[in-house]
Amino acid sequence: MFVIVTYDVNVKRNNKVLKICRKYLVHVQKSVFEGNITEAKLRKLKSELKRTTKTDEDSVIIYRFDSLKYSSKEVLGEYSPEEHFL
Amino acid sequence: MFVIVTYDVNVKRNNKVLKICRKYLVHVQKSVFEGNITEAKLRKLKSELKRTTKTDEDSVIIYRFDSLKYSSKEVLGEYSPEEHFL
Repeated sequence: MFVIVTYDVNVKRNNKVLKICRKYLVHVQKSVFEGNITEAKLRKLKSELKRTTKTDEDSVIIYRFDSLKYSSKEVLGEYSPEEHFL
Repeated sequence: MFVIVTYDVNVKRNNKVLKICRKYLVHVQKSVFEGNITEAKLRKLKSELKRTTKTDEDSVIIYRFDSLKYSSKEVLGEYSPEEHFL
Protein backbone atom coordinates (compact mmCIF):
# COMPACT_ATOMS: atom_id res chain seq x y z
CA MET A 1 0.00 0.00 0.00
CA PHE A 2 0.96 3.67 -0.34
CA VAL A 3 0.96 5.98 2.65
CA ILE A 4 1.39 9.68 3.30
CA VAL A 5 2.52 10.52 6.82
CA THR A 6 2.37 14.10 8.09
CA TYR A 7 3.30 15.16 11.57
CA ASP A 8 3.30 18.18 13.82
CA VAL A 9 5.28 17.34 16.95
CA ASN A 10 7.03 19.16 19.78
CA VAL A 11 10.40 20.44 18.56
CA LYS A 12 12.12 18.26 21.22
CA ARG A 13 10.80 15.13 19.47
CA ASN A 14 11.10 16.30 15.87
CA ASN A 15 14.46 14.66 15.12
CA LYS A 16 13.42 11.34 16.61
CA VAL A 17 10.22 11.26 14.54
CA LEU A 18 12.17 12.25 11.43
CA LYS A 19 14.67 9.41 11.95
CA ILE A 20 11.91 6.87 12.51
CA CYS A 21 9.98 7.86 9.37
CA ARG A 22 13.17 7.89 7.30
CA LYS A 23 13.65 4.19 7.93
CA TYR A 24 10.40 3.38 6.17
CA LEU A 25 9.41 6.19 3.82
CA VAL A 26 10.65 8.96 1.51
CA HIS A 27 11.09 12.40 3.04
CA VAL A 28 9.31 14.78 0.62
CA GLN A 29 8.77 17.87 2.72
CA LYS A 30 9.78 19.12 6.18
CA SER A 31 7.20 17.06 8.07
CA VAL A 32 5.79 14.93 5.27
CA PHE A 33 6.79 11.40 4.27
CA GLU A 34 5.33 9.16 1.62
CA GLY A 35 5.94 5.80 0.00
CA ASN A 36 4.97 2.18 -0.49
CA ILE A 37 5.01 0.10 2.65
CA THR A 38 3.91 -3.37 3.74
CA GLU A 39 1.28 -3.99 6.44
CA ALA A 40 3.95 -5.39 8.76
CA LYS A 41 6.27 -2.40 8.32
CA LEU A 42 3.40 0.04 8.78
CA ARG A 43 2.60 -1.65 12.09
CA LYS A 44 6.26 -1.28 13.16
CA LEU A 45 6.33 2.38 12.06
CA LYS A 46 3.15 3.13 14.01
CA SER A 47 4.35 1.43 17.18
CA GLU A 48 7.67 3.32 17.04
CA LEU A 49 5.80 6.61 16.50
CA LYS A 50 3.42 5.86 19.37
CA ARG A 51 6.38 5.16 21.69
CA THR A 52 8.11 8.38 20.65
CA THR A 53 5.26 10.93 20.52
CA LYS A 54 3.00 12.36 23.24
CA THR A 55 -0.66 11.97 22.35
CA ASP A 56 -1.74 15.16 24.09
CA GLU A 57 0.88 17.35 22.40
CA ASP A 58 1.89 15.76 19.11
CA SER A 59 -0.11 14.99 15.98
CA VAL A 60 0.62 12.33 13.35
CA ILE A 61 -1.73 11.68 10.43
CA ILE A 62 -1.37 8.54 8.34
CA TYR A 63 -3.22 8.55 5.04
CA ARG A 64 -3.37 5.05 3.59
CA PHE A 65 -4.13 4.12 -0.02
CA ASP A 66 -4.45 0.51 -1.11
CA SER A 67 -4.76 1.67 -4.70
CA LEU A 68 -3.37 4.78 -6.40
CA LYS A 69 -5.54 4.20 -9.44
CA TYR A 70 -7.52 7.42 -9.21
CA SER A 71 -4.84 9.64 -7.75
CA SER A 72 -2.08 12.00 -8.78
CA LYS A 73 0.42 14.32 -7.20
CA GLU A 74 1.48 17.80 -8.23
CA VAL A 75 4.29 19.90 -6.81
CA LEU A 76 4.45 23.68 -6.93
CA GLY A 77 7.99 24.98 -6.42
CA GLU A 78 10.82 23.24 -4.62
CA TYR A 79 10.88 19.44 -4.45
CA SER A 80 13.83 17.31 -3.31
CA PRO A 81 12.71 13.96 -1.98
CA GLU A 82 15.34 12.25 0.16
CA GLU A 83 15.51 8.45 0.17
CA HIS A 84 17.19 6.87 3.22
CA PHE A 85 16.23 3.23 3.07
CA LEU A 86 18.71 1.06 4.88
CA MET B 1 -12.38 15.05 -5.77
CA PHE B 2 -10.46 14.87 -2.47
CA VAL B 3 -7.12 16.60 -2.04
CA ILE B 4 -4.40 16.75 0.56
CA VAL B 5 -2.25 19.88 0.39
CA THR B 6 1.02 20.09 2.32
CA TYR B 7 3.38 23.02 2.21
CA ASP B 8 6.76 24.11 3.44
CA VAL B 9 7.15 27.82 2.72
CA ASN B 10 9.29 30.72 3.87
CA VAL B 11 7.99 31.98 7.23
CA LYS B 12 7.30 35.39 5.62
CA ARG B 13 4.71 33.76 3.36
CA ASN B 14 3.26 31.24 5.80
CA ASN B 15 0.25 33.28 6.90
CA LYS B 16 -0.72 34.16 3.35
CA VAL B 17 -0.60 30.51 2.27
CA LEU B 18 -2.56 29.50 5.36
CA LYS B 19 -5.30 32.06 4.60
CA ILE B 20 -5.52 30.95 0.97
CA CYS B 21 -5.84 27.25 1.81
CA ARG B 22 -8.40 27.97 4.53
CA LYS B 23 -10.78 29.35 1.94
CA TYR B 24 -10.95 26.00 0.19
CA LEU B 25 -9.97 23.20 2.54
CA VAL B 26 -9.93 21.99 6.15
CA HIS B 27 -6.87 22.80 8.21
CA VAL B 28 -5.89 19.48 9.84
CA GLN B 29 -2.27 20.10 10.86
CA LYS B 30 0.16 23.02 10.95
CA SER B 31 0.94 22.92 7.23
CA VAL B 32 -1.54 20.32 6.04
CA PHE B 33 -4.98 20.87 4.53
CA GLU B 34 -7.44 18.36 3.15
CA GLY B 35 -10.96 18.19 1.78
CA ASN B 36 -13.30 17.76 -1.13
CA ILE B 37 -12.93 20.36 -3.85
CA THR B 38 -14.21 20.94 -7.38
CA GLU B 39 -11.93 21.13 -10.43
CA ALA B 40 -12.70 24.85 -10.81
CA LYS B 41 -11.90 25.64 -7.17
CA LEU B 42 -8.71 23.58 -7.29
CA ARG B 43 -7.59 25.65 -10.29
CA LYS B 44 -8.32 28.86 -8.34
CA LEU B 45 -6.47 27.53 -5.26
CA LYS B 46 -3.44 26.61 -7.37
CA SER B 47 -3.28 29.94 -9.15
CA GLU B 48 -3.50 31.83 -5.83
CA LEU B 49 -0.75 29.61 -4.38
CA LYS B 50 1.44 30.13 -7.45
CA ARG B 51 1.04 33.91 -7.15
CA THR B 52 1.90 33.85 -3.45
CA THR B 53 4.80 31.38 -3.26
CA LYS B 54 8.35 31.52 -4.66
CA THR B 55 9.15 28.44 -6.71
CA ASP B 56 12.84 28.40 -5.79
CA GLU B 57 12.22 28.65 -2.04
CA ASP B 58 8.79 27.28 -1.23
CA SER B 59 7.29 23.82 -1.67
CA VAL B 60 3.61 22.90 -2.06
CA ILE B 61 2.49 19.32 -2.70
CA ILE B 62 -1.05 18.62 -3.89
CA TYR B 63 -2.16 15.00 -3.61
CA ARG B 64 -5.35 14.46 -5.60
CA PHE B 65 -7.76 11.52 -5.24
CA ASP B 66 -10.73 11.12 -7.56
CA SER B 67 -11.90 8.19 -5.46
CA LEU B 68 -11.34 7.43 -1.79
CA LYS B 69 -12.58 3.89 -2.24
CA TYR B 70 -9.37 2.15 -1.20
CA SER B 71 -8.16 4.65 1.36
CA SER B 72 -8.31 5.45 5.03
CA LYS B 73 -6.88 7.90 7.50
CA GLU B 74 -5.55 7.34 10.98
CA VAL B 75 -4.50 9.93 13.53
CA LEU B 76 -2.02 9.34 16.35
CA GLY B 77 -2.36 11.92 19.11
CA GLU B 78 -3.74 15.43 18.82
CA TYR B 79 -6.29 16.23 16.09
CA SER B 80 -8.39 19.41 15.86
CA PRO B 81 -9.42 20.13 12.27
CA GLU B 82 -10.50 23.72 11.73
CA GLU B 83 -13.19 24.48 9.15
CA HIS B 84 -13.22 28.07 7.78
CA PHE B 85 -15.39 27.91 4.70
CA LEU B 86 -16.86 31.26 3.80
